Amino acid sequence: MTPQADTLDESRLDSPEAIEDFALQEDYALNPEYVELVIDAADAGDGMRLRELLDALHPADVADLMGFLSSQYRAQVVPWIPPDTLAEVLPELDDRIRDQVLDLLPPDALAEALQELDSDEQAAVVEDLDEDERKAVLAAMPEVDRAAIETTLSYPEETAGRLMQREVMAAPQFWTVGQTIDHMRSHNDDLPELFFDIYVVDPAFKAVGAVAVSNLLRSKREAKLSEIMEPVTEIAVDLDQEEVAYIFEKYRLISAPVVDDGGRLVGQITVDDIVNIIQEENREDILALAQVGDAGRDASIWGIVKSRLPWLSLNLVTETIAVSSIAIFQDEVAKVVALAVLMPIVSSVGGNAGTQTLAVAVRALASRELTSANAKRIVGREVCVGLMNGVLLALMMGAATFAFYHNVRLAITVGLALIANIFAAALGGILAPILLERIGRDPAVSSPILVTFLTDFMGFFAVLAIAALILL
Amino acid sequence: MTPQADTLDESRLDSPEAIEDFALQEDYALNPEYVELVIDAADAGDGMRLRELLDALHPADVADLMGFLSSQYRAQVVPWIPPDTLAEVLPELDDRIRDQVLDLLPPDALAEALQELDSDEQAAVVEDLDEDERKAVLAAMPEVDRAAIETTLSYPEETAGRLMQREVMAAPQFWTVGQTIDHMRSHNDDLPELFFDIYVVDPAFKAVGAVAVSNLLRSKREAKLSEIMEPVTEIAVDLDQEEVAYIFEKYRLISAPVVDDGGRLVGQITVDDIVNIIQEENREDILALAQVGDAGRDASIWGIVKSRLPWLSLNLVTETIAVSSIAIFQDEVAKVVALAVLMPIVSSVGGNAGTQTLAVAVRALASRELTSANAKRIVGREVCVGLMNGVLLALMMGAATFAFYHNVRLAITVGLALIANIFAAALGGILAPILLERIGRDPAVSSPILVTFLTDFMGFFAVLAIAALILL
Repeated sequence: MTPQADTLDESRLDSPEAIEDFALQEDYALNPEYVELVIDAADAGDGMRLRELLDALHPADVADLMGFLSSQYRAQVVPWIPPDTLAEVLPELDDRIRDQVLDLLPPDALAEALQELDSDEQAAVVEDLDEDERKAVLAAMPEVDRAAIETTLSYPEETAGRLMQREVMAAPQFWTVGQTIDHMRSHNDDLPELFFDIYVVDPAFKAVGAVAVSNLLRSKREAKLSEIMEPVTEIAVDLDQEEVAYIFEKYRLISAPVVDDGGRLVGQITVDDIVNIIQEENREDILALAQVGDAGRDASIWGIVKSRLPWLSLNLVTETIAVSSIAIFQDEVAKVVALAVLMPIVSSVGGNAGTQTLAVAVRALASRELTSANAKRIVGREVCVGLMNGVLLALMMGAATFAFYHNVRLAITVGLALIANIFAAALGGILAPILLERIGRDPAVSSPILVTFLTDFMGFFAVLAIAALILL
Repeated sequence: MTPQADTLDESRLDSPEAIEDFALQEDYALNPEYVELVIDAADAGDGMRLRELLDALHPADVADLMGFLSSQYRAQVVPWIPPDTLAEVLPELDDRIRDQVLDLLPPDALAEALQELDSDEQAAVVEDLDEDERKAVLAAMPEVDRAAIETTLSYPEETAGRLMQREVMAAPQFWTVGQTIDHMRSHNDDLPELFFDIYVVDPAFKAVGAVAVSNLLRSKREAKLSEIMEPVTEIAVDLDQEEVAYIFEKYRLISAPVVDDGGRLVGQITVDDIVNIIQEENREDILALAQVGDAGRDASIWGIVKSRLPWLSLNLVTETIAVSSIAIFQDEVAKVVALAVLMPIVSSVGGNAGTQTLAVAVRALASRELTSANAKRIVGREVCVGLMNGVLLALMMGAATFAFYHNVRLAITVGLALIANIFAAALGGILAPILLERIGRDPAVSSPILVTFLTDFMGFFAVLAIAALILL
């Protein structure tokens, strides 16, 4: 018996606290040994033990566990998730995993679990169901919840309407603090599960201000809401979720009222949803810059291949075009084989410089540090940086080339080519994303392939064209 | 007069509302024309107009404006920022810009402005001051604030201790809801500016639970806190900020208590700080993957060059090593110049495949979707994906090579080399970040240069070695 197997002694894991302590590592990631315990219990068909193991965890950790199990084990474990945990696990799951878990649940059980959730989370789960299952689940829900879900799903994806929850705490401006608190105590059931601001509305249900709950609590009971309220930042119901995230981030909002075309309060968005969106948008940017599709956590091998092969094929095509200049100048290459050795360096360093500029530009566009207000200045700065880096690197590479080949003209050739390529990289790396953004495209998605093509082509062409002029 | 100049008619921008509407575009980014108005007023030396223009903006927008002004205009504008706005502007500024703004402010004015802030924000501003200025500012502050700032600054950077604010709302478990609310009304001044949870503490000041403010509000006045409290997720004061962000994200926290080694409550962290950290960590990942240092928004040209040149120089060196195989096989290249044309394709597509795997792996490590619990499975999956992509791309490239050169052996050579390189890319792309993480290094920082070197080297070496075996 190894010392590690010793810590798996099940008799020591008989209380929920002991299980939770064991399940989470210091950094709050799931302990692989805990995952093993779950798999052992599933293999043994020990449902009571599974329930015990799952019961000790926070719903977010149960969702995490699902991601570490193969789909076969997931099917065995899901029935043992405690019913009151299940509802909160569902919104936390990745799409593909959620699909599988939803398939494993009977509509009635699902409808019951969903009633624990706020309308935004209900809708997030229901939208993943098949047509038939969706109907069955909606039919099994109370009328009020069903209507709320259907309204939410009627807004376009990735807009504020989809993100918001319809439950809000709103109060007329003439109410006092005392009245508002009394109202909340007596209308407990109509309130959102958690809320951070009370929206103050006029008779037309327009949000005219907000009172943070902590401010309500410390104000005198006689104070009118209109006296203690602060201005609100309203979110239009059709605003793109990326814009919503930007507004939350900029103004450090915890929650914000969502309003329809007529300015009427229709729901609220809270910051916990925004954190997810920020992560999602960042993930999209990183993957787009690396030219890889998002296959999802639980993707099959074929799913991953499909997310990568198109970009690699495209790269194969653009690279073929880029090397065509070598094919054209093949006689020159045959005469001076050193060119075949040096060209890839010019092309690689140029590609690297282009990627640098591109990443900085995409990031600056996403955080609105680069806008039409300063685009000219930033482009000018990049061009200067490109020239300086080009000259400095050309000196290094020229010197190394001379040291190795004792040929001044060859050294000058590669030096000039490197300056040209790094200049092209700077220009392409900054202009491509700006122009793509201006025509309404995602600057992270298509710029890398453009810039890579540009720097590869220039890497070969500049070396060979300059060589043809001064070397041969 | 152009139509655009017409919208700048100053007489139409005479109320704060009109100015704010004009300053912000639909997407809440700053209107370049508003920036122009500010510059015009600075040029005219019209301080009253500057004050009027600035007064209409939210502090976050004033901070944004600072980023769009050159340092010369910033110096002219800063004195006109309304004093009550100034404090809130400071924490929002980028480091370099904040340095400049702080230099422009006399210590007394700064000390006064700082008193508007919570302790975490005070510390964030004070830590940027020079030694002398820091002393002067701290000396001008009340004893209580000074002690709080000094304690915060005694924690290491990028830990929970630095992030937290020391102001918390804590209450003993035997208090009733009514008692708690009455206490808050009468101790208004000691409370954090905004808070979302009341921490329930035992006599040793350990947090035994939390009550969301919205839940306090809707509970009966007679209810005991111990009856309505929920479990809390505690944050250790020395926890790295990246871990703190992970915990907030995973458990969707709005605020969390920070505890010292003895488990005593010492402060709280709120989600608005976490949003900044998530963005910062994501920014670091994107820039690290693109091998570029973070020069900051307002960097000089020389500052940017310094953030990029080291990586480019390193790339120049590794690429020189990678092409050394070409130099060794130069006779072969001279005989079959087609190799010089085809090698860069094999190397570029391999590099692209490596970048794809790397970006996915770095992302999965950051979100803990890839841990020791599933590392073997994920590595196995990547290897299979690499083989499949390699074979499919090799078929395409082999066919194209044959179509162009009518040489079966050449087609087989590049096909095999491409399979080898994409396999190497997959292996390197997944193993490099996992191994770096395991030895405690940031997987995003050094893996790209390793993987690029590997795929460039393999691109040349595989083509030439296979060519030497079967072609020549």
